[in-house]
Parts: sequence; C-alpha cells; structure tokens
Amino acid sequence: MIETPYLLFLGDAPDQLAAKVAQGIKDWRPEYAIGQFRMEGCNADMGLPDLSLAEAKAKGVKTLVIGVANRGGIISPAWKKVLVEALEEGFDLASGLHNLLREEPELVAVAEATGRKLHDVRVPSVAYPIANGVKRSGKRMLAVGTDCSVGKMYTALCMEKELRARGHKATFRATGQTGILITGNGVPLDAVVADFMAGAVEWLTPDNDADHWDLIEGQGSLFHVSYSGVTMALVHGGQPDALVLCHEPTRDHMRGLPGYKLPSLEALRELALTCARVGNPNCKVVGVSVNTQHMSETEASAYLAKIEADMGLPATDPFRFGAAKLVDALEAI
Amino acid sequence: MIETPYLLFLGDAPDQLAAKVAQGIKDWRPEYAIGQFRMEGCNADMGLPDLSLAEAKAKGVKTLVIGVANRGGIISPAWKKVLVEALEEGFDLASGLHNLLREEPELVAVAEATGRKLHDVRVPSVAYPIANGVKRSGKRMLAVGTDCSVGKMYTALCMEKELRARGHKATFRATGQTGILITGNGVPLDAVVADFMAGAVEWLTPDNDADHWDLIEGQGSLFHVSYSGVTMALVHGGQPDALVLCHEPTRDHMRGLPGYKLPSLEALRELALTCARVGNPNCKVVGVSVNTQHMSETEASAYLAKIEADMGLPATDPFRFGAAKLVDALEAI
Repeated sequence: MIETPYLLFLGDAPDQLAAKVAQGIKDWRPEYAIGQFRMEGCNADMGLPDLSLAEAKAKGVKTLVIGVANRGGIISPAWKKVLVEALEEGFDLASGLHNLLREEPELVAVAEATGRKLHDVRVPSVAYPIANGVKRSGKRMLAVGTDCSVGKMYTALCMEKELRARGHKATFRATGQTGILITGNGVPLDAVVADFMAGAVEWLTPDNDADHWDLIEGQGSLFHVSYSGVTMALVHGGQPDALVLCHEPTRDHMRGLPGYKLPSLEALRELALTCARVGNPNCKVVGVSVNTQHMSETEASAYLAKIEADMGLPATDPFRFGAAKLVDALEAI
Repeated sequence: MIETPYLLFLGDAPDQLAAKVAQGIKDWRPEYAIGQFRMEGCNADMGLPDLSLAEAKAKGVKTLVIGVANRGGIISPAWKKVLVEALEEGFDLASGLHNLLREEPELVAVAEATGRKLHDVRVPSVAYPIANGVKRSGKRMLAVGTDCSVGKMYTALCMEKELRARGHKATFRATGQTGILITGNGVPLDAVVADFMAGAVEWLTPDNDADHWDLIEGQGSLFHVSYSGVTMALVHGGQPDALVLCHEPTRDHMRGLPGYKLPSLEALRELALTCARVGNPNCKVVGVSVNTQHMSETEASAYLAKIEADMGLPATDPFRFGAAKLVDALEAI
C-alpha cells in the first residue's frame, strides 16, 4: 500500500509520452496528484502546480512517485540527487522502473536512516497463497483482450468511475505496474511465480459486499502465446461474474508476434467464457470495449454499431464515448 | 544439467512411497541408477546394490540424488552428515526438496571448498526468455490432463520409451521436479516467473530434427483454477503437434478443490485443441491415456473400450498396457 497523496516526479522527461504513468495518475486519481516536480530539460507538463519538495511537504504529500519512464529504466545520478533529498524531506518513494530503488545502495541507506519506504511496484512484496477456488462474495468484472495493450486498464478504470458516479461501490484492481502506481496498490502479476498467480488474483479480489464490484485490470490475452498463462490465472483466480471484451481494430498482428493474427471478438467471447465458467458457472460476457484512438469519430461509431449488430452486445470506446453502456450491462446482472 | 550416473539416497525413508523420486529414476533411467544409499531405519528398497560412498565413487557415480521426500521436505542433521561426506568424496548433490541445499551454510561451504555442485531442481537456474512464438522444427507431443496428478509424466515417459524402442528419436522433456531428477534436466515450470513461463517451455523444446519427437510433461490442467496458467503456458510455449488427453476416472473432484467436478474428456479435447491451435494450427488430439490404477483389469479394459467408442480415439493405460497405441498415432502424423 503506497501512502497518498503524491508528488509526481517528471524528472527530465523528453516528452509528454515519457510521463505516461504521471498522466495516468492525474487522469484517474486527480485527488492524489497534488503537484509535479520537474527538472531542467523536462518537456512534460501535467498542468499541475510545480512544487519544491518543501512546498509538497507543506501540502501533505506522502509519496514521491516516479511518473516517468526513461530509456532503459535507469535511475540517473541527477535523478538520484532529488530522490535522496525527497527521502530526507520525509517522503516515501514509489517506482515502476526496471532499475529498482532497492538496487541503489545510496537510496537504501538514506531510506533506512530516515525511516522512509521504497516501493518497487515491479516486484511482488507479498507471499501470495496457492489459489483455493472457494467462491467469494461480491461481484467481479474482468477485462479480457484479443491482444496485449488494447485498453484493458483504461476500460476497467472508466467502468470504476462510471459505477462510482452512479453511487455504486466499486474498486479498480490493478494487476500491472502502471495501474499499481495509479491507485497505490495491486499485484504485479507478470512478476509473480507461476504457482501463485491465481492465488495472487484471489488475494487481490477478496470477499466483499454483495453489491460491490471489483473491476479487474486484465493482462495479456488468452490468444497471446507469450503471456496467455498470466491471462488464464486472471480468468480463473478472478472468478469474474462479468467479462468485457477489449479490442484494438487496426492491428496487423498480435503485439510482438509477427505472423500471429488477432482472433475475432467472437473467438475471444467463446474461449474466455468457456474458461471463466470453470471458476464461475454464472459468468457472462456483458459488452465490448474498443480502443478507437486510430479511427475518426465517424469510423469509430460505425465500427461500434457493426459490433453491436453482429454480436448482440453493447459496444463502446469507454475512454472516448463513456462507459455508460458497459455499466448498464453490469447493473442488469 | 545434472551429471550422471547417480547414487540414489534413500535416507531413513519410512516406506517405499516416500522414495517416489528414486523409484522414478530406477523405472525410467535404470542406466543412471548405479546403487542406493540407505541409512538406519530406512524401509524403502529399490532392489539396487547398497553402496558406500567410496564404492559408488569407484563405480563412476557423479551425483548423489536425494530420492526421498520426508515430512516437511527438511534436511535433517543425520542426512546432512552424509551429504557433507558425499561432497567431500567428490559427488555433486541434487535435490527437489523445499528445504534447498543452498540454504544450508554447511553444504554451501563444503561444496565451495571441494568444487562440487548443489542442484536444487525446485528453483530455476536459467534466465528464461520471453516467448517469441516462432515456429520450431521437429515434432512435439504434450500431455494435457483433466486434472493435476493424473499421470501426465508417466504418459510422456512411456511414449518416449516406446518411440525409442521403435528406433525413433525422442526426448522426454521434464517440466516438474520429479521429472528433472529422473532425467537430469528440465524446467521447474511452477517456480518460473509468470512472464517467462512460455519462454521457458520454448527454451526446453528447441529446434530439432524434423523426425524428432519431444515428449513434453504436462503440468496442472486447463480446468484446475489454481494452476491453469502454468498449463496454458505449456500449450502455447510447447507448440504441440500432438496432444494426449490424460485422465484418472475414479476422482470425486479436482485435486485440492472440493466442489469442482472433473471436466469430461470431450471438454478437455475441445478446450485444449482450441488453445493449442493458436500456437500450432496443425495440432491434433491423438489419443487418451487413462490412469487405471484403481480399477481391476476387466474394469480398465471396459473403460478404455468405451472411451475409444465414444471419442473415436485410441485409449490405453500406457503404464499398464503399454504405449503402442499412442505411438502408432504419433507415427501416423
């Protein structure tokens, strides 16, 4: 659990895209994003107040989050100087970089001396159990994709926001580094040891109120040969009551796998439902979420209408057009 | 790679069942099993010569393999005395115990001083790659089960033996601790980090001669909610040309999961084939392997005949009745 609120460290980000994690926090947890910290040469801007460490401290910030990914995921000497000062000022640090905070002896020493925490969200910090398959109370939605990186995290976050706006109890459950940094907790599922994957998902989505929805971030795809095992653990460990199919229609081939075609949404529906019903016989596919960022609004609307007609399911781009249709479908369960 | 041949350490095994690993080595790699080492109170017997460490050394033994699992998987002081002597005598040690050899400072110190190796097959020793899905040469069979522990390892080993007896090139590929100790190498798949599972399977079953068969040991089950992710990584990473369905017909419920019924063989055929064809569109289900140990010979024969009639697939208990039917089916591919 990472303490909030945050100061977003943008470092010397060469462009806005490099600060994707900070953008995610600002978009999805604006209440956590008190300010930003930019170094010389920083070309990213979240539109937040630029705060010194002392100013952030005065505003109640608890954690400095590294909201930027640089080439190679390295912690540079210039960054390290700021991070050391932040620890001395009394902040915890949180990072999703490959170069772990705990691999830097200077940061470890200062954190120890000051009693601050180093959160490396890339690696698990919990001894997860083996999954036991016992039915849990509360309701769960899992986003499953035709491919990796098709918008599963954004779909779950959009649905959480819409559910909460309608007064429902809802919790986004992060299963990847960016999601963990956005929300302050979760499971870095791709870094969990094989035997404990499904147990980690059970741990992440425990018993809850009967009318509470977990919105589980998906990972990989049942059709992606590199990562399908991770997806399967989500489908079985998550015991989803509802599946939302996620798709990006402009891809030539599966991400990182030239020669592998994307499956149809129909094939995904069939396979994901077959698998999910092992863990929850009442699971339903409730809708389709399409990432239409590479389509004009007209193209996008036509594409969504065609999917609705072909599949008999509500279809939307929840980031572009809102998640109302998908949440309507959850309410109908 | 564990150096062969072996001296099988039976320790103070309370009964024959506790020495399951030693039994597996003796059954499947008799040429590696030069002798056994029994301590006071040992009630297991592999029918091999009882050798002192010096005698084993004289016979060319390279590695002492811990062929016994005791309660808790602990290395007792009495065992440790023998293991230290074995290192000093010039043997490597190999173990699949939870209590790792490398966690015992005394063993580590002596191994270092004598230049011997400690093989803990429970944990991976290789930095596996992310799977790339590129089609590999050679042929592969994967054993998939309706449940865990239904005989997938024995099925693959029986098929390897029969293929070799017919003069074919064939290699059993171990994916679990017992299989690794039996054959001297493999991947402890349940201990691999999630992102690298499918890559580990690709690594284990590399390009080979066009007429070579890998017989891949399965793990878990696509229908077992605790371990299905591991199975999925095998189905996709293994690129199987042939699947053999494995089943144990007398179970009330999935192993460790009261309330979860076993799937039908038909359901397994359908799901496993759908998944496998993502990685290898030419994959076929070639036969059924039934573990009939809890059935009389008459019951077993009747059960196998019914499966053959119902499914149109050859069915056998390869350990009881031989693997000829399954290997006939591989030859027909």
